[in-house]
Amino acid sequence: MTVRTNQRIDGTRLWDSLMEIAKIGATPKGGVKRLTLSEEDRQGRLLFQSWCEALGLKVRVDSMGNMFARREGRDPTRPPVLMGSHLDSQPTGGKFDGALGVIAGLEVMRTLHDLNIVTEAPIELVNWTDEEGCRFGRAMMGSAVWSGLEREESMKARRDEDGVIVATALQEIGFAGPEPCASFPADAMFELHIEQGPLLEAGGEKIGIVTGAQAQIWYEAEVTGFDSHAGTTPPVARRDALLTAARIVELVDAIMREEGDTKVTDPGRGTVGRFTVYPNSPNVIPGRVRFNVEFRNVSEARIAEIAATFPARAQALAEANRTNLTLNTVFRVPAQPFDADCVALVEQAAAKLGYPARRMVSGAGHDAVHTASCIPTAMIFTPCKDGLSHNEAESIAPDEAEAGAQVLFEAVLARANRAIK
Amino acid sequence: MTVRTNQRIDGTRLWDSLMEIAKIGATPKGGVKRLTLSEEDRQGRLLFQSWCEALGLKVRVDSMGNMFARREGRDPTRPPVLMGSHLDSQPTGGKFDGALGVIAGLEVMRTLHDLNIVTEAPIELVNWTDEEGCRFGRAMMGSAVWSGLEREESMKARRDEDGVIVATALQEIGFAGPEPCASFPADAMFELHIEQGPLLEAGGEKIGIVTGAQAQIWYEAEVTGFDSHAGTTPPVARRDALLTAARIVELVDAIMREEGDTKVTDPGRGTVGRFTVYPNSPNVIPGRVRFNVEFRNVSEARIAEIAATFPARAQALAEANRTNLTLNTVFRVPAQPFDADCVALVEQAAAKLGYPARRMVSGAGHDAVHTASCIPTAMIFTPCKDGLSHNEAESIAPDEAEAGAQVLFEAVLARANRAIK
Repeated sequence: MTVRTNQRIDGTRLWDSLMEIAKIGATPKGGVKRLTLSEEDRQGRLLFQSWCEALGLKVRVDSMGNMFARREGRDPTRPPVLMGSHLDSQPTGGKFDGALGVIAGLEVMRTLHDLNIVTEAPIELVNWTDEEGCRFGRAMMGSAVWSGLEREESMKARRDEDGVIVATALQEIGFAGPEPCASFPADAMFELHIEQGPLLEAGGEKIGIVTGAQAQIWYEAEVTGFDSHAGTTPPVARRDALLTAARIVELVDAIMREEGDTKVTDPGRGTVGRFTVYPNSPNVIPGRVRFNVEFRNVSEARIAEIAATFPARAQALAEANRTNLTLNTVFRVPAQPFDADCVALVEQAAAKLGYPARRMVSGAGHDAVHTASCIPTAMIFTPCKDGLSHNEAESIAPDEAEAGAQVLFEAVLARANRAIK
Repeated sequence: MTVRTNQRIDGTRLWDSLMEIAKIGATPKGGVKRLTLSEEDRQGRLLFQSWCEALGLKVRVDSMGNMFARREGRDPTRPPVLMGSHLDSQPTGGKFDGALGVIAGLEVMRTLHDLNIVTEAPIELVNWTDEEGCRFGRAMMGSAVWSGLEREESMKARRDEDGVIVATALQEIGFAGPEPCASFPADAMFELHIEQGPLLEAGGEKIGIVTGAQAQIWYEAEVTGFDSHAGTTPPVARRDALLTAARIVELVDAIMREEGDTKVTDPGRGTVGRFTVYPNSPNVIPGRVRFNVEFRNVSEARIAEIAATFPARAQALAEANRTNLTLNTVFRVPAQPFDADCVALVEQAAAKLGYPARRMVSGAGHDAVHTASCIPTAMIFTPCKDGLSHNEAESIAPDEAEAGAQVLFEAVLARANRAIK
């Protein structure tokens, strides 16, 4: 494939930097453990900062530890174009989830530097604090506070399993910055990320043009029956909580498949991921099961429909088996569309470069989904092997990373140089 | 109801002794915690021994701690008729599971004593060691060794959660007896026990004439799929281990109900009691589920049929959902019929006394199920409230205890006085 531009990012340099930062927190199985605000996160941040400063970029840190590396524009009064992602990882994470978006942004900065390009608007490369949420229990914490979706005080008071609060952890690694964490005027935000799903690989596309994020509804469920002796209790006397819960698992799956289950593009998502049985003894009929249910869909209307019908369908299953069901909505996230102009810039970049691309909706949450609530935002996806992520075996090909970074370069450059009315 | 005999056990004395021994290990919720070979078990054994010795009975203890309180017969050379049960309890057990059979046996001894009855054969009242199995993991341990179904050395080497072995625990409570633990010649064994199920209560019967124990087959199962992201993985790409496991839970239930699910007498039993999901995270499609499956039935042929067909049916469900199933048979217990003559004595006693009674099969395991493998054995069941057992709320009525003890008295007396050919 020919890349149809003479302003090319350096794919080898990008890959080398990805591999170098992956050494920080490297795991024996080839993954990365770089938990947010840990010693490894500190080392990753310092390496990132040194790379930025080597390019003459000025790095600011805000009070949530979000890092902004600024490259000045010809007009310093224009609001900057943001790009970036996150450097923290899951406990058994991969090398690319988050790091790709940050290091590709660095490669954009390096290319602008090498080619002596001066953009109209400033460009800022962002490393958001705690996207993963696995240490303090709230994913996308830094971008949530920045976007005004969470209060800084309550986020800083969150504790990890050892009782350490966010505020203390920020200070301990030296990244409780002086800038207030708030959504300063910014012209746009672009985030490159691995897809974490199988669609691009299945379709043979190099680039995903992300048009928004799915609507979601999450429930906590508890079925209560009655513990009794497996050997003596006849069918008619049973109130088996596990049987009811099993039927609800099937219902969730069936609702998901109502919109198709033969193509990777079928939009339904419905999952029971956490599921705990009590008393969990081999010869006791379970009296209680606690589990989580989540539905996601690109269609806001479909999630609204599920929210209106699923609880009654689940209740009917519980009652038919003489058990009780409590079902609480944990949260309801509306569909978050991305900015049409920013999405168009991504699409035009992919077209210009000749990369096979598809429009798609993000199944996962990302920092960009939060920034989309306050500034024009878009995302670029690259394929990942077998759709695998949150796993040490997470893998992408160097040419896929290069293609994603090149699209990021084109989109950011176009946005930063656009004419202002 | 008139009890049609002039040889009557003393129901008040029986109840008082049941309540007195229930003080040892009494729990705040009205139950009993008298774990085998614990300090409470020692106290219970000593109280039991003192009650027996007050009647002039000679108490022997064997090397597994089984206690035999002998009342001599007119012909000391005849093999004794055994009766009894166990004094150990579950951690959150009730007052009657086990204790009823031992204390009712004591009341039989007291009545024989009061009425100056001399039986032809000797009678021995047994307290079997560790029926519950909850401390050392092997239920009915004492009767298993006595019946030759387990090796004494391996049982004595079993450990509790603190690492204490059975041999040490026996010595510490002073009940590692001098008699070898082995099935000395005995003429019969009768065990009175609460039903631990709902059949007698539902049918309004006072007495269950237990004709044997159910056949059983137990499996350990593991379904393997693939962990993946709940938000990004489309239906067609999912390999959800929980969905397969849920369908097997439904299959087990359906197989149970094939023989009916409207009457308390329906014979099917099929249970998934232990069920653990991995990685058990709210937004990860489960890649693995481990669970136990058990089937029981009065019909040996029915369990054989299930053993021949269930694995393939479960495998088909796993394959249809693109997951793998391993299914290992943990154990297979054949149906254990009780001795026809001994069962007839129980039936005749209930009829003579005018108690509504039904023939039934034990759903649970009991010491008598083990002794039935080497000596003529029968059991008597009494109702328990709501069929509840292995629970501190386990409850029976005083007149139910009395009726059971009276039947035990009649059956044991008849057996001990039978003419020998």
